[in-house]
Amino acid sequence: MNQETFGRIALIGIGLIGSSLARVIAREGLADETVISTRSPATLEEARSLGLGDRYEQDAAEAVKGADLVIVSVPVGASGAVARQIAPALKKGAIVTDVGSTKRSVIEQMAPELPDHAHFIAGHPLAGTEKSGPSAGFASLFEDRWCILTPQDDVDPSAIDRLTAFWEACGSRVETMDAAHHDQVLALVSHVPHLIAYNIVGTADELENVTEREVIKYSASGFRDFTRLAASDPTMWRDVCLHNRDAILEMLSRFSEDLTALRKAVRRGDGDALFDLFTRTRSVRRSIIEAGQDVDVADFGRSIAGGRDGDGAKP
Amino acid sequence: MNQETFGRIALIGIGLIGSSLARVIAREGLADETVISTRSPATLEEARSLGLGDRYEQDAAEAVKGADLVIVSVPVGASGAVARQIAPALKKGAIVTDVGSTKRSVIEQMAPELPDHAHFIAGHPLAGTEKSGPSAGFASLFEDRWCILTPQDDVDPSAIDRLTAFWEACGSRVETMDAAHHDQVLALVSHVPHLIAYNIVGTADELENVTEREVIKYSASGFRDFTRLAASDPTMWRDVCLHNRDAILEMLSRFSEDLTALRKAVRRGDGDALFDLFTRTRSVRRSIIEAGQDVDVADFGRSIAGGRDGDGAKP
Repeated sequence: MNQETFGRIALIGIGLIGSSLARVIAREGLADETVISTRSPATLEEARSLGLGDRYEQDAAEAVKGADLVIVSVPVGASGAVARQIAPALKKGAIVTDVGSTKRSVIEQMAPELPDHAHFIAGHPLAGTEKSGPSAGFASLFEDRWCILTPQDDVDPSAIDRLTAFWEACGSRVETMDAAHHDQVLALVSHVPHLIAYNIVGTADELENVTEREVIKYSASGFRDFTRLAASDPTMWRDVCLHNRDAILEMLSRFSEDLTALRKAVRRGDGDALFDLFTRTRSVRRSIIEAGQDVDVADFGRSIAGGRDGDGAKP
Repeated sequence: MNQETFGRIALIGIGLIGSSLARVIAREGLADETVISTRSPATLEEARSLGLGDRYEQDAAEAVKGADLVIVSVPVGASGAVARQIAPALKKGAIVTDVGSTKRSVIEQMAPELPDHAHFIAGHPLAGTEKSGPSAGFASLFEDRWCILTPQDDVDPSAIDRLTAFWEACGSRVETMDAAHHDQVLALVSHVPHLIAYNIVGTADELENVTEREVIKYSASGFRDFTRLAASDPTMWRDVCLHNRDAILEMLSRFSEDLTALRKAVRRGDGDALFDLFTRTRSVRRSIIEAGQDVDVADFGRSIAGGRDGDGAKP
């Protein structure tokens, strides 16, 4: 058995992330046996019909019995309940991790419930799409994406090494950081962007002088970009807001302060201030592309797909 | 000559939009002769080396001589100056239009300058990418995109018909509306989304507890979506802000009110309010996809490109 393979892996929760894990575990042969568990009988049936695992259990405690690696992929608000449920059934030496978007709260919820004979290492693969459910997953979801681990100080280093090797075998790059810092960074790069997107789509939904039909019809001029993030799973994002409240509120208030300054520049007609901001932000985009974190094609490659072929420039 | 073809078309300004027009005019044979003009000698040289037109003039007045259709594609703040410059050289019966993102201001700037013997019809193709300059254009840019015309009441209907036929020949769908309403709709679907994107990228650029390196590294978790809009041409967007101020400020203040309510829901831990908003916005995305205004693939088809092939689901 290689360092990154496990005898039995239990996946608790089989949505976008859980089902993508099931697929990459199967493709890479990372487990001798994969056991899948979810509370919803319909979702469990969907996972079974997709052939995502070797065994299917509605009871999470049943699923984790004898598992060497347990990955909890549920909305962060459900982490504590899952930990309480699986704790008595965990095998000695089992590694328990999660994939939640907030880390302090998950540690506070799970760590006190889990037995000392298991290694708990909170984690967060920065991967996902706006789709949800077991059918939305795919094996390459984690490729070239970062996975952040936020282990507590007393965790066995060899367990961290094994979990790191597992994520690397899934195609990810692994970074370790403090849970509180994770929550601040993610509030900025993920949580606030999602909230801003939800907010503007909500604003557009309830205006009286512009109809929803017009918003939809003319959405390609910018608005539609926000609707992708605003189509993300409502339960997941409700829980993120409830469980990373302080960092989110801090970042939102920074955003609002800056927006106030921007509104003032627009009201005053301060073209220089506007031009400076719009130039500065352009270079951030360039850095992201250079870092390989986004594609270097216009419009995400979206509308241009068949376009460049039809180039009509004169010779 | 078909209704949508012209003897001579003059393109004033040869950035993303102007150069895309040049390409589609060539591909579809919409003009016997295309004359290109831009103030910058370097850009004019670039257009020439790309073979975008039949003739190249630095002087806009020279370019419009004898033209049957004149399309002004410059930042909206330059519209008045261009109108003043070309007015004395316009042929009787020439159609003059523009492609600017704001319409009341362009009409106020251009209409008083232009002679009665020309037909002025302000227009706005809702098409573009975050790239700029003559090399960024492509012939299919306008395909299946809306072009909004905002003619004044006294414009000859047959000129509107000819310009409509021209845009349809470029692949666009054409809609006519009042300039003031255009400016409100676009403030919502385009201008405010761009400003919000610029703003959040600006916020991320100047925090002390999260480094720019971290923002870039972890940007795929949401933030990077905003950087695309925030990479748009600074001059163009400065002018949009200066020339659609009232509608933008109105929409920004609606956005801010809603954001205040959202912050309150986060602070209070009001999970039901959050869940309701996040569910409502999801349906807007669905409508946009149904209207053919965005692609129905996860993550704009971006990261999944090679992904689904590697699906590892068990049989």
